[in-house]
Amino acid sequence: MENIKAYVTQHKDRFINELIELLKIPSISADSAYSQDVLNTADAVKKALLTAGCDTVEICETPGYPIVYGEKIIDNNLPTVLVYGHYDVQPADPIELWDSPPFEPVIKKTEIHPDGAIFARGSCDDKGQMYMHVKALEYMVNNNNLPCNVKFMIEGEEEIGSTSLAWFVERNQEKLANDVILISDTGMISNTQPSITTGLRGLSYVEVEVTGPNRDLHSGLYGGAVANPINILTKMIASLHDENNHITIPGFYDKVEELSTEERAEMAKAPFSLEAYKKALDIDEVYGETGYTTNERNSIRPTLDVNGIWGGYTGEGAKTVIASKAHAKISMRLVPNQDWKEITELFTNHFINIAPKAVKIKVTPHHGGQGYVTPINNIGYKAASKAYEKTFGITPIPQRSGGSIPIVALFEKELKSKTILMGFGLDSDAIHSPNEHFGIFNYLKGIETIPLFFKYFTEMSK
Amino acid sequence: MENIKAYVTQHKDRFINELIELLKIPSISADSAYSQDVLNTADAVKKALLTAGCDTVEICETPGYPIVYGEKIIDNNLPTVLVYGHYDVQPADPIELWDSPPFEPVIKKTEIHPDGAIFARGSCDDKGQMYMHVKALEYMVNNNNLPCNVKFMIEGEEEIGSTSLAWFVERNQEKLANDVILISDTGMISNTQPSITTGLRGLSYVEVEVTGPNRDLHSGLYGGAVANPINILTKMIASLHDENNHITIPGFYDKVEELSTEERAEMAKAPFSLEAYKKALDIDEVYGETGYTTNERNSIRPTLDVNGIWGGYTGEGAKTVIASKAHAKISMRLVPNQDWKEITELFTNHFINIAPKAVKIKVTPHHGGQGYVTPINNIGYKAASKAYEKTFGITPIPQRSGGSIPIVALFEKELKSKTILMGFGLDSDAIHSPNEHFGIFNYLKGIETIPLFFKYFTEMSK
Repeated sequence: MENIKAYVTQHKDRFINELIELLKIPSISADSAYSQDVLNTADAVKKALLTAGCDTVEICETPGYPIVYGEKIIDNNLPTVLVYGHYDVQPADPIELWDSPPFEPVIKKTEIHPDGAIFARGSCDDKGQMYMHVKALEYMVNNNNLPCNVKFMIEGEEEIGSTSLAWFVERNQEKLANDVILISDTGMISNTQPSITTGLRGLSYVEVEVTGPNRDLHSGLYGGAVANPINILTKMIASLHDENNHITIPGFYDKVEELSTEERAEMAKAPFSLEAYKKALDIDEVYGETGYTTNERNSIRPTLDVNGIWGGYTGEGAKTVIASKAHAKISMRLVPNQDWKEITELFTNHFINIAPKAVKIKVTPHHGGQGYVTPINNIGYKAASKAYEKTFGITPIPQRSGGSIPIVALFEKELKSKTILMGFGLDSDAIHSPNEHFGIFNYLKGIETIPLFFKYFTEMSK
Repeated sequence: MENIKAYVTQHKDRFINELIELLKIPSISADSAYSQDVLNTADAVKKALLTAGCDTVEICETPGYPIVYGEKIIDNNLPTVLVYGHYDVQPADPIELWDSPPFEPVIKKTEIHPDGAIFARGSCDDKGQMYMHVKALEYMVNNNNLPCNVKFMIEGEEEIGSTSLAWFVERNQEKLANDVILISDTGMISNTQPSITTGLRGLSYVEVEVTGPNRDLHSGLYGGAVANPINILTKMIASLHDENNHITIPGFYDKVEELSTEERAEMAKAPFSLEAYKKALDIDEVYGETGYTTNERNSIRPTLDVNGIWGGYTGEGAKTVIASKAHAKISMRLVPNQDWKEITELFTNHFINIAPKAVKIKVTPHHGGQGYVTPINNIGYKAASKAYEKTFGITPIPQRSGGSIPIVALFEKELKSKTILMGFGLDSDAIHSPNEHFGIFNYLKGIETIPLFFKYFTEMSK
């Protein structure tokens, strides 16, 4: 595989242009207005997989958006790598904060990406990272050095909870049989210090509605005499954390794994500058659970964040109204061993319990997923580590991440195989935010590194 | 004036149709998209006043929307009544909750309004109530029984704080010289129990912004480690009330007038059914400051209500984001003696003080106004009381209202005259809410009652 670097250099412009075409399709799964675009993206992924060298590619129907399944089986006696990715993207709001339209990709240089980065929604999460695998396959097929079997499962509902993927995986265990699952949907520390994600947080995402009076009221005539749903909602949300920023939901921490002093000391070795972190976010102080460091707070500890809140008059000027309803979207990041369905139920019961009788409460669970930890002593991890070492010239650091890929725990349960999270994005890539981007360096480095994983994994499996 | 009832009956349909035409213009002063409509409404009011019999009517320019000033001076030795009203209206949001478009007036019968009510934004607040005075003038002029001088001052910024009106009044004290100010912009207890508003609450309206990180962040990667501006905002707002629903801003209650046991006993005599109140709003319990009744909470006690809140992702589905900013619009209703500028300052300082260092705070005052109490022993009140008694057949009850007409305190200061609040709306008319309406009975009864006020006030002034 000595020629991979040369191949990438030779086809670089085409690799970038193909990704740009894919990024132009606004495949926002959360907004039904874009459903045709989501479907068109599935078709585009199917074509790309066939062109890259898959023997068969199917658009598999599900209760929701379809799953693109492709495979190239060269020998049943060789190992099989299952590549998972997603072709749907996050909504682009707040749209006004984008410097260029989210679905009109542009390449711009940044301090962190001196070779340029592609700015577009989905560039990093996950179209760009998923497409690295398609191009890695192209390389291996065109150069006759695909060392094992490969299967692709690319879904369209990752940003809305992967409901149909769970349905699909449960019904296709034989089709999806594999020796290792490979996902690029996470990040690494920096372009000079690669890392491999070994832990993911779980997630419980709920929407709450507080209803007071049956109609909007004049705040002068009714103010002070009836429960204002917005005031009540702020009170209820505020009460979910105590003065140490511990979450107050009874039973919430019961199953939380407490790391040993040694493990925490090991974690603390990862390079991290609190000053640089604060400067990058333009904040004077970090904020979180008492007794834990920033890197612990966003990885080994569960959290509760309001992701959206709305109610009453939010237009220009002033309106003296007491709204009939107030709403919030709330997500909890969970750590391994916390069961997301149990946490969702604990939240729901608690939130209803703490409401004053003057309002009515509705809690709607959106989706969730379990946390996950990858052991670093299995051959999947070792093969990935060796691949990064070869292309970056430095051993990657194993790292717990605060994000969630809820499907990973399901894969282990249903397919009985371990998942290796070979992410090439950076925290600063602004995924889920305006001006999401993905470094050209990172994109090409991913295409270079993935075939090496295939090679080492096959060798180590012998 | 025995023929007023006959005149109203004869011209009833025209009176209704003229008001309907006025209601079709969406004069939303809070939203600059409607500025031409606001100006067109001023022109329509000018024409209506000229048609009704004013000798001169001017569109008076101000730094904001113009004030329509009209007058009919019959004898400088006779008293002068200054009628104040406003031609602007509240925004119509949430538009989806209107049963018919807010600016396409329709007449429908309701349980409370068996003779029908006009449903439209501004029907009661204040186009309908203001136009009663225009039609009352028409009657008095056409029938040669205008007993005194009359001046009209109709503004276009009442719903956004009357800033230009204050400017105008300060500069036109001679032009506006009067013996009593008459306003119909309040309500009465019911169609069988009229009441006159003798107290108004003051108002301080502010907008707050909480800024955390400099961009929206992925809640998985950053959740738990940085201050989430929405969580912080809910915590800050929640802390503004204690467990007894007292407001916690230091100094907030310092100037609040505590009513005597006798006064509170007198207030408690007003007919009120808590069960009917809860049923009308479809709430299981009322909610408010410990130690006060519902009618006290919404009249003699100050309040703090969130009128709007927004931040993060509020669209369909789920987005795991930590917003960079969170916002709220907050208004405080004040009681007489509380100075709104002082309260705005107390709020601002307190809100900044309680913020954690991990966020930045911006407080923008929108507008405000002083509370007011009208004595019931002056001839303005007596004349109004007698007028209602004549047309309704029952003595009106003096009543404190929770609403605010900030300009009333200014009138007293600048023009040295008392204001009489002859309101004909009902609490159930849904002003500031979807499906605002104004009873046909109330509209016509107002036109009938106003000329009697002119008559009695002139007689009592002799």
